[in-house]
Amino acid sequence: MELMDELNIIINGRDEVLANGLFDDYHAVDISMELEKLESDDIEKFVRLLTNENVATLLEASEDDILLEITRDFSNEELIEIFTHMEDSIVADLLGLMSTARRKSILSIMKKADSNILKMILSFDEESAGGIMSTNFIALKKNLTAEEAIKKIRSISPEKEIIDEIFVTDDYHRLQGIVTIRDLLVYDAKTLLEDILEEVDFYVYGTDDQEIAANLFSKYELDLLPVVNSNMAILGVITSEDIIPIIEQEHNEDILQMHGVNADEEYDSSWFDSFKSRIPWLIINLLTAFLASFVVKSFESTISQVVVLSAAMPIVTGMGGNAGSQTLSIILTSIARGEMSLKDDFKLIFKEMFLGLTEGALIGLCAAGVFVFWHRNLYLGLILFLAMIFNMIIACSMGFLIPLVLDKLKVDPAIASSIFLTTFTDTCGFFIFLGMATVFLPKLI
Amino acid sequence: MELMDELNIIINGRDEVLANGLFDDYHAVDISMELEKLESDDIEKFVRLLTNENVATLLEASEDDILLEITRDFSNEELIEIFTHMEDSIVADLLGLMSTARRKSILSIMKKADSNILKMILSFDEESAGGIMSTNFIALKKNLTAEEAIKKIRSISPEKEIIDEIFVTDDYHRLQGIVTIRDLLVYDAKTLLEDILEEVDFYVYGTDDQEIAANLFSKYELDLLPVVNSNMAILGVITSEDIIPIIEQEHNEDILQMHGVNADEEYDSSWFDSFKSRIPWLIINLLTAFLASFVVKSFESTISQVVVLSAAMPIVTGMGGNAGSQTLSIILTSIARGEMSLKDDFKLIFKEMFLGLTEGALIGLCAAGVFVFWHRNLYLGLILFLAMIFNMIIACSMGFLIPLVLDKLKVDPAIASSIFLTTFTDTCGFFIFLGMATVFLPKLI
Repeated sequence: MELMDELNIIINGRDEVLANGLFDDYHAVDISMELEKLESDDIEKFVRLLTNENVATLLEASEDDILLEITRDFSNEELIEIFTHMEDSIVADLLGLMSTARRKSILSIMKKADSNILKMILSFDEESAGGIMSTNFIALKKNLTAEEAIKKIRSISPEKEIIDEIFVTDDYHRLQGIVTIRDLLVYDAKTLLEDILEEVDFYVYGTDDQEIAANLFSKYELDLLPVVNSNMAILGVITSEDIIPIIEQEHNEDILQMHGVNADEEYDSSWFDSFKSRIPWLIINLLTAFLASFVVKSFESTISQVVVLSAAMPIVTGMGGNAGSQTLSIILTSIARGEMSLKDDFKLIFKEMFLGLTEGALIGLCAAGVFVFWHRNLYLGLILFLAMIFNMIIACSMGFLIPLVLDKLKVDPAIASSIFLTTFTDTCGFFIFLGMATVFLPKLI
Repeated sequence: MELMDELNIIINGRDEVLANGLFDDYHAVDISMELEKLESDDIEKFVRLLTNENVATLLEASEDDILLEITRDFSNEELIEIFTHMEDSIVADLLGLMSTARRKSILSIMKKADSNILKMILSFDEESAGGIMSTNFIALKKNLTAEEAIKKIRSISPEKEIIDEIFVTDDYHRLQGIVTIRDLLVYDAKTLLEDILEEVDFYVYGTDDQEIAANLFSKYELDLLPVVNSNMAILGVITSEDIIPIIEQEHNEDILQMHGVNADEEYDSSWFDSFKSRIPWLIINLLTAFLASFVVKSFESTISQVVVLSAAMPIVTGMGGNAGSQTLSIILTSIARGEMSLKDDFKLIFKEMFLGLTEGALIGLCAAGVFVFWHRNLYLGLILFLAMIFNMIIACSMGFLIPLVLDKLKVDPAIASSIFLTTFTDTCGFFIFLGMATVFLPKLI
């Protein structure tokens, strides 16, 4: 039976046992994705059948919109009870989504210790290291022995999810290093933590952007990253499994921004949100399209004498745009991986220029051949061939230079590169082709 | 002092202490990235100064090209000694890069137990789950007690890097579940592993593509994923930190393929490799460009009578292309995240059509205004306005439909979508605009 059918049976029959049993058979992520397709009152009927623990599991696996929907079905007191089964960073996200009034009233009736942690996380930006960190870690003083450390760990309830690495601190709660539970087992019971700790190579501040954390994970293949305050006191931890959705999110944002879409837009955003997200880019593109159009207009008299030029010119600009965006995509991904910079790799521009020359020669030859066949004029072919070469050299070198220069100027190259590139390939393409045609006009008529 | 300066001093002075000391001050990834800039014989001089352990650390942090370079500086016997400090999956990758002759001779002089594991990993495709898994795990029988399990773990040398989760198997080595070392500590010493194990929700087969593993990690926020054979016997494990570079790699490949570049191309690939990688896409694009050009050519007589059309027509096609690729980028990222399918979300096409209508109306109005001002002909403006609206409706609905249909047909939508989209926006754009101009020709002259 399909999950959706089971959900309908459960909702219609108000069947508590089946509802909670669902979490044994399906992952909460899948249940949540199916719930998104239901009406609000059916979602309410379903979640009211669940144990607090399963509501918590469901909330942890849900996207923002359904998250809010579910919380509306519970009182503040019920939510606080549900929150005890959830990770603090997710509870903080959830509180951040609620109205200020409800957030304040929930925090005011919570246990002081819990609300203080949540307030601390909420004090960070949602997309900062502090906003995404988990506070489920164990921190022990460095002058404990391995045996004492094990005793402390045993005293923590097995239900509480805690990462297996233990932070070692000095008397001022400042991070000194990390030990794993296995270290505690395999070293002699009397060894001090400070003698077996491994120093941390990398950490981030709570206020650092999540992208900084994501880049450290992917460059150095970290399994965890401590989050500290300006005094090096440990605040929380980001694990590699926490960072994967962030990396995905940043990548998707890059792709959207490369195509002139606001990073917040989703496939099911409302018409108005999509319209707002896309119109600014279209207007900027319209301006550069006019620039190219203006170049064409200034060659009107040439075109009126050799109308076939109007059929050939979109090939020159279009192919230039394609070649340039090939180079651009290589350079953008290399910049994102931190592999290249303007300073270190400037001389690679000569490779790109030679690529443009050779690509242009081959593509230009094919295009020229067809037009000579159509129009029975060798000069038209020659002009098309040369214009293609020149425009592709410009396209490849600009596809190389633009993102590197923007990166150097601290402008995100993923957002702005393609618009500059198109401006160059379109205006230069039209200008070179129609300009040469004007010079050779007597031979073309 | 910069790392490069230190490297030069070390290489010129053949300074062993400084060379090995570098690994305390810098991460091996950074050292390896600097080495890439040096000449082969300087790299050899440097690595010959290092302890076997530091060579191993360096190899684990290096990219393929420098990896091969370094191994050439050591004999087979030396390499085998170095390999004892490395993760099996990376050793297997390295062996896979070597010539068959060298690989065979190294495997033949290794200890049988080691070479068997490596041969098993090598039997999988480099980009499969088996090819990227680690074999540094502990597997224990389910009828052991917590106490016995701890004793077994203690007996493994603390230097050996092992993940903290322990796989629990039955008598036939088949995976039954997972326990953490902390579980062993907090549960009663006499508890059997089978009573505290947590069942695994997800696993992959060794032969599964690495992308399957990557998608499971990002969808379900896993921290590890067991790799099994067809009998469910445990072969290895993929951890979330192992999968991050894979996710990055798959994302970069997507971006490159979206722009018609072979996924293997790097920013510093040779001219010939880049040429081979890019030319196929350019040739395909040339064919669609000719299709659009053919449409223009068939309206030659219209253009010859109203030459200003040639300046307006690239605006219609260009803006259609932009609007379509905005939709495309949203749909592609949503498909990649597994959020949408043709069946479930077909009705969203009406939103996209309405977006195209409204975007076209706004952009068409601006464009028409400028051309009416330039050309003092209201009909030209009207035609431009209507053509923009029609072309943007086509662009947005095709940007929506094409990737979903390709996905349904099991063709990778990231590769093929944009070429289909451009074909539609260009040929339809020219046809609609020039077609309407032909109909209203008497009003335009």
